[in-house]
This record gives sequence, structure tokens and C-alpha cells, in this order.
Amino acid sequence: MTLNHQSGTLLNDQNFRPRCVRVDSRDNVAIIVNEGGLPEGSCFECGLVLLEAVPEAHKVSLLDIPRGAPVIRYGVVIGHAVTYIRAGSWVHEDLVSLPDPPTLDHLPIATAHREPLAPLDGFTFEGFLNADGSVGTKNILGITTTVQCVSATVDFAVKRIKAELLPRYSNVDDAIAITHAYGCGVAIHAPGAEIPIRTLRNLSLNPNLGGAPMLVSLGCEKLQPAQLLPVSSLPILANEPYVVRLQDEQHLSFGDIVNAIMEMAEKRLIQLNRRTRTTRPASDLVVGLQCGGSDAFSGVTANPAVGYAADLLVRAGATVLFSEVTEVRDGIHLLTARAMNHAVAEDLIREMAWYDAYLERGSVDRSANPTPGNKRGGLANIVEKALGSIAKAGTSLISGVYGPGERVITKGLIFAATPASDFVCGTLQLAAGMNLHVFTTGRGTPYGLAMVPVIKVASRTPLAERWKDLIDLNAGSIASGDETIEEVGQRIFQLILDVASGRKETWADHWGLHNEFALFNPAPIT
Amino acid sequence: MTLNHQSGTLLNDQNFRPRCVRVDSRDNVAIIVNEGGLPEGSCFECGLVLLEAVPEAHKVSLLDIPRGAPVIRYGVVIGHAVTYIRAGSWVHEDLVSLPDPPTLDHLPIATAHREPLAPLDGFTFEGFLNADGSVGTKNILGITTTVQCVSATVDFAVKRIKAELLPRYSNVDDAIAITHAYGCGVAIHAPGAEIPIRTLRNLSLNPNLGGAPMLVSLGCEKLQPAQLLPVSSLPILANEPYVVRLQDEQHLSFGDIVNAIMEMAEKRLIQLNRRTRTTRPASDLVVGLQCGGSDAFSGVTANPAVGYAADLLVRAGATVLFSEVTEVRDGIHLLTARAMNHAVAEDLIREMAWYDAYLERGSVDRSANPTPGNKRGGLANIVEKALGSIAKAGTSLISGVYGPGERVITKGLIFAATPASDFVCGTLQLAAGMNLHVFTTGRGTPYGLAMVPVIKVASRTPLAERWKDLIDLNAGSIASGDETIEEVGQRIFQLILDVASGRKETWADHWGLHNEFALFNPAPIT
Repeated sequence: MTLNHQSGTLLNDQNFRPRCVRVDSRDNVAIIVNEGGLPEGSCFECGLVLLEAVPEAHKVSLLDIPRGAPVIRYGVVIGHAVTYIRAGSWVHEDLVSLPDPPTLDHLPIATAHREPLAPLDGFTFEGFLNADGSVGTKNILGITTTVQCVSATVDFAVKRIKAELLPRYSNVDDAIAITHAYGCGVAIHAPGAEIPIRTLRNLSLNPNLGGAPMLVSLGCEKLQPAQLLPVSSLPILANEPYVVRLQDEQHLSFGDIVNAIMEMAEKRLIQLNRRTRTTRPASDLVVGLQCGGSDAFSGVTANPAVGYAADLLVRAGATVLFSEVTEVRDGIHLLTARAMNHAVAEDLIREMAWYDAYLERGSVDRSANPTPGNKRGGLANIVEKALGSIAKAGTSLISGVYGPGERVITKGLIFAATPASDFVCGTLQLAAGMNLHVFTTGRGTPYGLAMVPVIKVASRTPLAERWKDLIDLNAGSIASGDETIEEVGQRIFQLILDVASGRKETWADHWGLHNEFALFNPAPIT
Repeated sequence: MTLNHQSGTLLNDQNFRPRCVRVDSRDNVAIIVNEGGLPEGSCFECGLVLLEAVPEAHKVSLLDIPRGAPVIRYGVVIGHAVTYIRAGSWVHEDLVSLPDPPTLDHLPIATAHREPLAPLDGFTFEGFLNADGSVGTKNILGITTTVQCVSATVDFAVKRIKAELLPRYSNVDDAIAITHAYGCGVAIHAPGAEIPIRTLRNLSLNPNLGGAPMLVSLGCEKLQPAQLLPVSSLPILANEPYVVRLQDEQHLSFGDIVNAIMEMAEKRLIQLNRRTRTTRPASDLVVGLQCGGSDAFSGVTANPAVGYAADLLVRAGATVLFSEVTEVRDGIHLLTARAMNHAVAEDLIREMAWYDAYLERGSVDRSANPTPGNKRGGLANIVEKALGSIAKAGTSLISGVYGPGERVITKGLIFAATPASDFVCGTLQLAAGMNLHVFTTGRGTPYGLAMVPVIKVASRTPLAERWKDLIDLNAGSIASGDETIEEVGQRIFQLILDVASGRKETWADHWGLHNEFALFNPAPIT
């Protein structure tokens, strides 16, 4: 079974007429497109009449659905009718039971047997080549902290670095403190503790930081510099000091400490300032995909368009990361089928099983995911949300799976396992080596990251118009029939190349809207 | 069994002579006082000769300790000798086995039967009286966020508020954003989810925010404003708008959103600016105690001196919070005995049991607590660390127990259950209603909070001298015999009154060293 969003049928494509969109020919529900929803009695061209008012982005039943019969969207059962649902009814969340998730025991394993998509040559961007072969889309000084104890001190130093040093190094875009709540007061040997630790390590090695890490440590913390960033993780560290330790006895005052941080920072700035952009093939891109504040349009407009761009990127040889375990869990049978080989499918199953167990330890399951806003946006449950979320991943075969916080070193479409929490997912994709982020939203969120540019794609035109100085690209034109998924996908692909090259600025960067890092620590704190 | 730190014996109190300190007459180990430690052959006045070099703050055996015999410090068994330890040996962590924690089944319950300490009248400070009877030590505009999605936007607005509005409201000390990683992408109905939610609510109601909360919400997040801060939590909220919701349709741009936040903020500033300090009894203080970066001196100098000040505060009718479950767990038998009544003792046991289960779910136990720095500082294990930590709580009976993030509404010595993580503990004590924080440190940490003043007390003179512009008060003079615990405790008490009144500024406030909030969320993220 394959989602075929391109076949989404616009039952009526004229303006100011009742409009709804069905994604798959097997679907017995469709999504109301009209802004503000439709009143009772609204009549579609196909003859369907609404028996009650249905809000925008919510589902209408196209057929009578008997009690217990499947409710089908994206060609997939998203639940079962808890009562008899007459054609023309509002199929709201209370009418749809949550099915069990697919068991992990009998999944289709690499059954897609698809030819790889045709290669796409000749696309380039202007990036900063690093010694390890990775390529930055920005040129940033990153100062890693081992522990929250030093955060305020590093923030103090970074303010001075930005004011006093940065203006003298014009090829350097920014200086950022990699601060977090980890590093001490945590069970550092607990199962799962490797996740936040490798996340911090790999954040420090993100391509946009130019392979010039420096660490600020307190001294007595649990997470010691040699564990966070061992010399073996980057050869250059063997040759030059890269740690400022606050408790070291040579620091005779707070002023001394700040000076020591600034001195090391200036050495890094000199090094980073020598870097310039050169023309690089699109295959050097590592694009992380994410959705946040989703609605029922996300899976119809923004996510399929991003999926189309993802296919273009994969064809161009780039790395594309999709993530968010709880938002793929209910579609895992679609993904294991698309695995490039058995090993990739088994890795997918391993990550699902790990997360199932993690949630169970906390006495919850994946149904904890949808938010009130998702539901107001028409998403009945996590199954419907997941199917819309997976659309971001396009149609390529899945070439690899990485655990949370692992650095991705292979090409193609990669499942980088993360929680769905926007900031935790973003942080883990940064650790994976992402150099550009595409974020789709239906409800709207002013999301941004300091380390890489974030392109925000709206699923609905009204959102894109209202937040004209926050949303970078509107995919709502797909719902209104003004553009196709392919056309919007092409625009996203081109915008990725422009933003990666520094030719276009995202709104998040324009305003400096940069959310804090949020580490995933599944282990207890102490 | 009661700790009697005041009886600590200075075996030799002359400068430039080998010195060590024994806390309790039953102890078979003592702590080396000399800076830099002592070499092999060092001879104490009592005749003891070091068989090997012993680092500063580490333990020397005063007697031969047979294999399997108890190692005793603070009059309490901190472990058993894993080999025969001759008198004059360095009793490092590898020589001391970790005992089992006290079981929670047969603890002494409210057996102390002590007379309450004599009341202490006439001590006052200058504070800001709130409508609910609480008293602020600062006058701060706090802007609460429901979810991390809005953090960068609120940070943007707060920068403008500080630059454009705050200078016009001279009675207001600061404007702060209460930002965090909670609010969405979390299992909000999981067991334990009530902790971060009530923490955020009670942070918003901290006395230093003047009962003038405002919320910034995204709109679609899981943690909705009505759950975070229901109107019932503060009567004034019924009468005036207190939420800016980014997704509301009247906001036609990012600029609109920022303007809406600034407009509401200015209304709050007008309200806060009318407040002035008045003379208040010391009983209006809610002092949170914490230690971080501890060493073996912490339990001999800084913590007992803070404990003496805690007794003075309790005698003056104030509220004193001590916390850090994993750092009292091994001394719980000392605390249940000191409970004012059976109910308080049972509440203590309930909090220990909850945390035992929490750690067990993560496959760890309380031994995950000590840090490498604690151990380099001479603390062999969590038992020794806990006994030193408990010294902060003085000698009063324990009058109440509150769960993590609960608002404390009673007086006296309160156990406010929190993890030991410095920032999580500090955040939870702020939620408990703390209006002043006392933080002891042996290794040194540049800790600070924006919401209340933090007085940092050093356990060792070398640290206080080196970090002269970070440490507010030196308790190291106790180890050198230059001051008594009582004298330093009196100085701490006086400094609390001065800082609470705004007469003296802490170093953290001087530099603006304000660590981020760190919520305790024991539930899974999604």
C-alpha cells in the first residue's frame, strides 16, 4: 500500500464554493478546504450535502459508514466508526476509535522492490567545506558547555564576544553558546544516558561550526570534557587546547574566567574567519524535515510538497532526515516495506520497540501525542497525524536508520529516530549533522534554530498570509488548486538551495528567533 | 543519634602545621584541612603520622580500621572498610563500601521530642508586600510561557521591554521570561506530569513577581493557559486579560504579536511600579537552602553554618526549605526522628519511596549522585555527601513536607522534595515560594537565579579568595579555626536580611549571572 498524495481529488476547485479534498481513492472521508469551515446544507458538486456544519480542515464522511466499519484516509484505516456515520457528517475525533498500532512482529520487510529514483545532476549551492568533508551553510563559532553550572557565565562571555570580537571577523556569521540542562545531577551511567552525551558531542561537531569546537567546563561536573568530546572525536583537538575549566586554579576572578573564554574564542574566530563559501554539489546537503503544530492540511499540502522536495534531494545525492518516532509508529508497516534492505527494516523496528518500551515505563503510549491544537485542526488521532507526517519523507527507499543523537554519515533518505517534540527533534537532527531544516506547520509556530537556517512551510494560505513575516513558503495553494504538489515541491527545493547558499534569509534568522536546545534524556535525574 | 558539628575537634589549630578536623567524637576518620593536602610522614599534634600523602579535604584514618569494620564520620556509618586500613592512611572512596540505604519500614517516627527552639523577635527586612500576604525581595515582571514554541518570541519581546519600557518604571527591578522545554511533545496525562505543570503555575506566582502574572501561549500546545494558570489560582485573573495567544487571528504579523506582548507587559509594569518596600518581620522570609559542587568541607563549615542560620530563621518564624532527596535519603532515619509529628514523618517516607521508585524505573539508585568533583573533593560516597548536606537543615524539628513544585504555605523547617540537580532544585524551590536562596559550594560554581537573590557561601577559604567576585560569604574560616560555626551562621543570617532588603547585592546579581529554569518532568516526552 502506497500513499499517493498526487492523486488527491479536488471535488470542487472553484472559489467561493464548498470544497473538500480526498487524498486517496479508497478514502471514505475528505477534508473541508474552505476557510472558516462550511455550514449545514452546503452542497458539493458531486452531490454530497453536509448534514451539519464542519470546521475547516476537519473531515466529512463521503459515504455512510456503519458502526465498527473502518474510517479510511490516505488509503489507510485511521480508526473505526464508534456509531453509524451518515454521508455528509462531521467525522470528529469522538466518532473514530483508535486502532491498535501495527505489531512489530509481522511487518513487510523491504518488499517495495522499487528502482531507485533517477539521479538528478547539476544542482549546487555555495557552502563552507570542512576538513572532515562536511559542508556548512553558515559559519558559526559554537561554544559547548559540559554542564548547566557554566551556562550563565558562557552567556555573559558570548554577549561580549558578539559585541567586542565578532565585528572584527566579518566572515563569521554568529557566536552561539550550546547550553542545556544536562551534565550533572543526572544518572550518567543509566541505560539511555548515552543519548544526551552523544547528542552534545555531535552538536559540537555540526558542519556549521566549522570543526572548531571549544568547551567550557566547570570542573567537578559528572559529564567531563574527555567524555563529552574526546580528542579521538576530532583529530585537531590533539594539537591545541579546547577546554576552559572554571575551577582551574589559575583563574583568580570571574573576570579572569571570562577573559579565558574570550581568548580561546578569538583563536577560533581567526580560524573560522579564513573560511569562504565555495560551490558545492547539492549532495552535500543534510536536510532535516519536521512538522509542528500540524493540522489536517499538513498531510495534504505542506508535507507532500516537502516529500516531493525530499525526493529531489535524494535524487541529487543529498542526505534527507525524517524523524519523530511517535508520528511514524502507526505507519511503520509502510516504512519497513520501503526499507532498502533487511538490515534497515530491522533497525526501524528496533527504534520503534525502544520507544514503545520507553513510553510504557512512563505508563503511556503513542496516543499521548496529538495536541488540542492538532485536534482542533481536524486530526482525529495519532494514526491520522502519523500518516500525514510520513508524507514528508516522499517516496524514496529508506537507506539508513540512526539512533537519537547519532551522527549520520550516509546519504539518501534516513530515518533519524527522535521524539516528536519540535525542539528535541530539532536538537537531535542538528546532532545528526543537519545543515538545513525544513519545518512544516498548519496551526503556526514561530520556530527557529540558531545553528542552521529553518525554512518554515505553511499548510494553509490563511496562515501564510497572516504570518507573512514568519512563514517562508506557502503550500496552501495546493488545497485551493492554484498549484500542484510538484510545483510547490520544486519551489521548496529551490528555496533550500538559495537559503543554504546564504542568498536568501529565513524569517527566523531575520528576527533572530532562535529556540534553545532541548536534549533528550530518557534516564533519571538525581 | 544527632549530628553535633559544633563539637568538631581541630586537632591542631596553628598555621603551617598539619591540621585535620573531626566532626563527631565517634568518628574514626578526619578531614585534612591544609591547602594542597599533606605529604607522607606529616605528624599531627596528637601523634598521628600520615602513612601516605592525603589530599586536602580527604579523609585520614585516626585508628586502625579492620576489614569489614565501619568507617564513621558525623557519628554515622558511611560505609565499611574493604581492606584493613591502618591509622594514618588515606581513606579514599575505593576503601569504603557503600552500605544499603536505611529501609523505609522501621524508621524512628517523631522520636526527637525536643522543645521548639526559643523564639527570636525583632528581626526585620524591607520587602514588597503582596495581596496574598507573601512578600517579595525583588519587584520583577515575569512573563510565563506555556510552551517552548513561544520562547524565542518572548525573549525577543523581553529584550525590547528591557530597552524601551523598563527604564520608565524605576520601581521595577527586572523583566524575565519564564521559558522552559515543557508544554508540548510531552505525555501530559502521564503519572508525574502534574509536577512540571504545578511548577510552572507556582513559578508564575512567586512572591517576587508581585501577583501580576501574564502568559504567552502559542494556541495549539498541549499545556493550555487554563490548565497552567487557571483563574482560580489568582482572583485578579478573573478581571483582566492575562494571556497573549500567538495563533489568535487578530495578530496579523510577527510585529503585531510582539506589540501585543509589550502592551500587556506595560500594563503589568504600571501595576508593579506602584509597589515599594516596607518593613516586614523576618517571618516573611522563605529561604531555600541548597548545596552544589560539594566537597568534604561542605559538611564541616558552610553547611553547618547555614544550618545555624536556618535555626535562627526558624526561631524568627520564617520558612526554611531544604530539599534534594538523593542527598538526604541515606540520613532519612535522622530526619524522620526530627519530624514534628507522625504525619510529617510519613510524608518524608512517602517522598523517599516515590524517588526510590523513580530511580528504579530508570535502572539506577541513589549511588548515581556523587560527581567526580565530589569525589576529588574527598566525598567517598552518597552517604557521606548526604550527611554533610543535611547539616544545612540545622537542628529544628521538621514542620512540613511538600512534593516537588508545590507551593509551601506553612512556616518553620520544611522539606521541599526535589532532585539534587542544582537547577532543578532551585527551580522547584522558586515554585515553592522561595524569596531568597542560600547556596553553599566547596568546589565552586557561578550559580545564579534571576527570580530571587542567591547568596553563595564557600566551604573553603582558598575558593572564597580565588573567586572573590563570585562568592558572597566565606565559611572556610571555620576549618582554620578563625571563626566558629555560630559566628559564621550569624553573618549568614545578617546577610540574608541585608540582601532581602535590597541593601546588599549578591555577586550573581552584580554580574547578571542568571541560570535558566530547569523543570522536573518525570514523565516521558513524545
